[in-house]
Amino acid sequence: MNIKLVLKLVGRVLLLEAAALVIPLAVTLLYRENPAPFLLSIALVAACGFALSALPAKQQFFTREGFAAVALIWIFTGLVGALPFFLSGWFATPMDAVFESCSGFTTTGSTILTDIEALPKGILFWRAFTHWLGGMGVLVLATAILPKLGIRSHYLTQAETPGPVFSKLVPKQSQTSKILYTMYFVLTALEAACLKIAGMPLYDAFIHAFSTAGTGGFSNRNASVGAYDSVAVDLIITVFMLLFSINFAVYFLILTRKWREALSSDELRFFLTVVAVATAVLTLSNLEVYTGLWESFRYTVFQVASIISTTGFGTADFALWPQFSQLIIVLLMFCGASAGSTGGGMKCSRVLLLLRAIRREIHRITHPRSVEVVKLDGKLVSEATLHTLLVFLGAYVATIFSAALIISLDGFSFSVSFSAALTCVSNVGPGLEAIGPSGNFAAFSGLSKGVMSLCMIIGRLEIFPILVLFSPSTWRRN
Amino acid sequence: MNIKLVLKLVGRVLLLEAAALVIPLAVTLLYRENPAPFLLSIALVAACGFALSALPAKQQFFTREGFAAVALIWIFTGLVGALPFFLSGWFATPMDAVFESCSGFTTTGSTILTDIEALPKGILFWRAFTHWLGGMGVLVLATAILPKLGIRSHYLTQAETPGPVFSKLVPKQSQTSKILYTMYFVLTALEAACLKIAGMPLYDAFIHAFSTAGTGGFSNRNASVGAYDSVAVDLIITVFMLLFSINFAVYFLILTRKWREALSSDELRFFLTVVAVATAVLTLSNLEVYTGLWESFRYTVFQVASIISTTGFGTADFALWPQFSQLIIVLLMFCGASAGSTGGGMKCSRVLLLLRAIRREIHRITHPRSVEVVKLDGKLVSEATLHTLLVFLGAYVATIFSAALIISLDGFSFSVSFSAALTCVSNVGPGLEAIGPSGNFAAFSGLSKGVMSLCMIIGRLEIFPILVLFSPSTWRRN
Repeated sequence: MNIKLVLKLVGRVLLLEAAALVIPLAVTLLYRENPAPFLLSIALVAACGFALSALPAKQQFFTREGFAAVALIWIFTGLVGALPFFLSGWFATPMDAVFESCSGFTTTGSTILTDIEALPKGILFWRAFTHWLGGMGVLVLATAILPKLGIRSHYLTQAETPGPVFSKLVPKQSQTSKILYTMYFVLTALEAACLKIAGMPLYDAFIHAFSTAGTGGFSNRNASVGAYDSVAVDLIITVFMLLFSINFAVYFLILTRKWREALSSDELRFFLTVVAVATAVLTLSNLEVYTGLWESFRYTVFQVASIISTTGFGTADFALWPQFSQLIIVLLMFCGASAGSTGGGMKCSRVLLLLRAIRREIHRITHPRSVEVVKLDGKLVSEATLHTLLVFLGAYVATIFSAALIISLDGFSFSVSFSAALTCVSNVGPGLEAIGPSGNFAAFSGLSKGVMSLCMIIGRLEIFPILVLFSPSTWRRN
Repeated sequence: MNIKLVLKLVGRVLLLEAAALVIPLAVTLLYRENPAPFLLSIALVAACGFALSALPAKQQFFTREGFAAVALIWIFTGLVGALPFFLSGWFATPMDAVFESCSGFTTTGSTILTDIEALPKGILFWRAFTHWLGGMGVLVLATAILPKLGIRSHYLTQAETPGPVFSKLVPKQSQTSKILYTMYFVLTALEAACLKIAGMPLYDAFIHAFSTAGTGGFSNRNASVGAYDSVAVDLIITVFMLLFSINFAVYFLILTRKWREALSSDELRFFLTVVAVATAVLTLSNLEVYTGLWESFRYTVFQVASIISTTGFGTADFALWPQFSQLIIVLLMFCGASAGSTGGGMKCSRVLLLLRAIRREIHRITHPRSVEVVKLDGKLVSEATLHTLLVFLGAYVATIFSAALIISLDGFSFSVSFSAALTCVSNVGPGLEAIGPSGNFAAFSGLSKGVMSLCMIIGRLEIFPILVLFSPSTWRRN
């Protein structure tokens, strides 16, 4: 393991983070708030960044180093991103600040804050901005870093996998990234503009646009999006949550007028079907708590988009919905958004491929002599990819239950411990009962908050980078 | 699909069931209870059996027919086994009787009864006897039927799989089965004798021996095994629950003095390690509800054995244990017993192989050029077996959540709906909160009870037979 080179890379990212901190600093100055937490943070993060990036290192770099770098970058980013929170004095313990920062950068959106509106505007801006940076980080990871590392089949956005993939569409890496960031930027700006037109204050519009873009879920209002009680706002955010949970390669196909190819994506169809079916079933199921079909539809469609995109905004408290509705919410948390988007969860394409693998298994039994393959977008999925995917799903469920076990030491009910682990690994935000849309994560112990912070990173990086980082075989000399 | 031959086979099994019903009839006569429910049941079951087994059928029989037959046999057995229950008048609805019968034959042990002790002795005898028959049915399935069908890699007891397997040890099928049934018989008789010596009434000793042998969990006492409040009884049942959840092939190796081979089984070691670690951790965790280490150990070790063997007897109400302990109980429910035993759950060997597949995945990332295989008992596990196993695990978790979704329509909490589905699919018995060791399943709707009955059969048959039965491709003409 070439740890020096890995730390050097971490250092470079910390320098970028120090630069990013200038923007909330500007917001702080604009609103005449105390700039000290940000000034001090910038100084500390920049110092760390310079120190690490100045490390002398050989250029040896393999997959192992790539995975370790990805894992350490996210861990360090989460840790130093907590500095402004802690220095502001609004967070009781360093662990609380780290939890909030990890929740931000991983675009989870779980919070330990009980009265969000009491916080300074600069701090709340940084909080939402971490979502936006985190979302961009995921896109960079999927399109720029991973293909370079030649990491196969671990990420469904990767060239080896069927389906629309960026690195296949645009030959030059630099060009790919440029198109991608431009789309991310434009979509965010568009949402902010729409929200402003719909009557949101400009500051709030930016906060919510950042949170939607990263599919995070931090709001600057205690009642989340519900605080605005505006159909227009609900609708705009619903549409953008869904837009940000679609594979960005689909947009690229649309931009280059390859409509047919864009719309024939199996994952896109599966995603839209799940959204439509879940909305229809939940609207009917929720009729018992709402007056009329329209009201039920309005709050349901927002929540479905919010959960499957793994954003986690709320306009209604689904903890008050029928238990049947809540179980559908749990299933949507597992499923998550599309690969190649900023959303989390297992990803629609993986769920779809698991269902197809089960169907093939049945077909094999009933027709033992026939040879059937699993396909996505009409193309064969290699057995190696399928194997990695199935191992991933096993590791996913195992991670959730292991985390729930530690969280249960706090003595909360099974529903709370399990949904806390699930919502963190899937990067959603809210859970069931006490940690529902109206609740928060303040009551957990420091240990649980630490485990949950790690779970958010594990989920965001699709499990294996963290497992590689903590595996003894990674650190053994060859 | 050669449905006539399949139904013919179902008919033959129903004739066996009619014959088996003579034993509880004898118990009824012995205790001078009303024999009408049993006489009527025997007549009906025998009539059905004769009618079906007289069907004219071609001898064409493929894997597809085998899976369908296995599925239909278990469904029919569950349905007609409910007759004495319903005819006795002690069960409010036919669905309640079917639930109890399916719970019996699948060796689950969940009950809808609220006052067990009020029931006639004959009915309670039949209830426990279904466990014993079900346990034998599973052993027959694993050792006699499946190898004949050439069903590969779907059952870990199958010849293709590594590990001690019966059909490998004894060349002649008839001989294998004879040895197996003798062992099952002897172990059951041994337990009944031990329990009698420990002070249990003879009738109770048989009931509990039958329930332990099938790893079922039906008791004739409302307080389950806790009613005897005897350390000796607890200890005897603990030991036998563990004995019945070990691969029977291990005993065969011991009988033939192949000690080294028997004790080197990876699954056995994994199983014993899980039991030891879970007991140690839970004993410490439960110290807060018990006075002293011995008391905590006594109730903990019994419950660990009861849950991992998927028996479900109780001497303590784990719903009152700390949440951390309850989560370990949930994990043990997932894990389950060894392949080739009468126990349920995912099976230790599958959990072990999943862990090894994850470890290999990490190793592949850190050492991309090395070729690593997954082994069990020192022998290579083929990629095809591993694939089937991973698809099985995905289908297992998907089944649990799908069932929980329907059960949640009854409005119980997530903990109850989820644990009800888990405990039924894993054939354990009790769940969390209201369906814990002191509770029962009476409060669920008919729909839920139907779904749970089906789940028990799905779990008992390791999922795919039922999926094959309900798959349209099974019924399509070639």
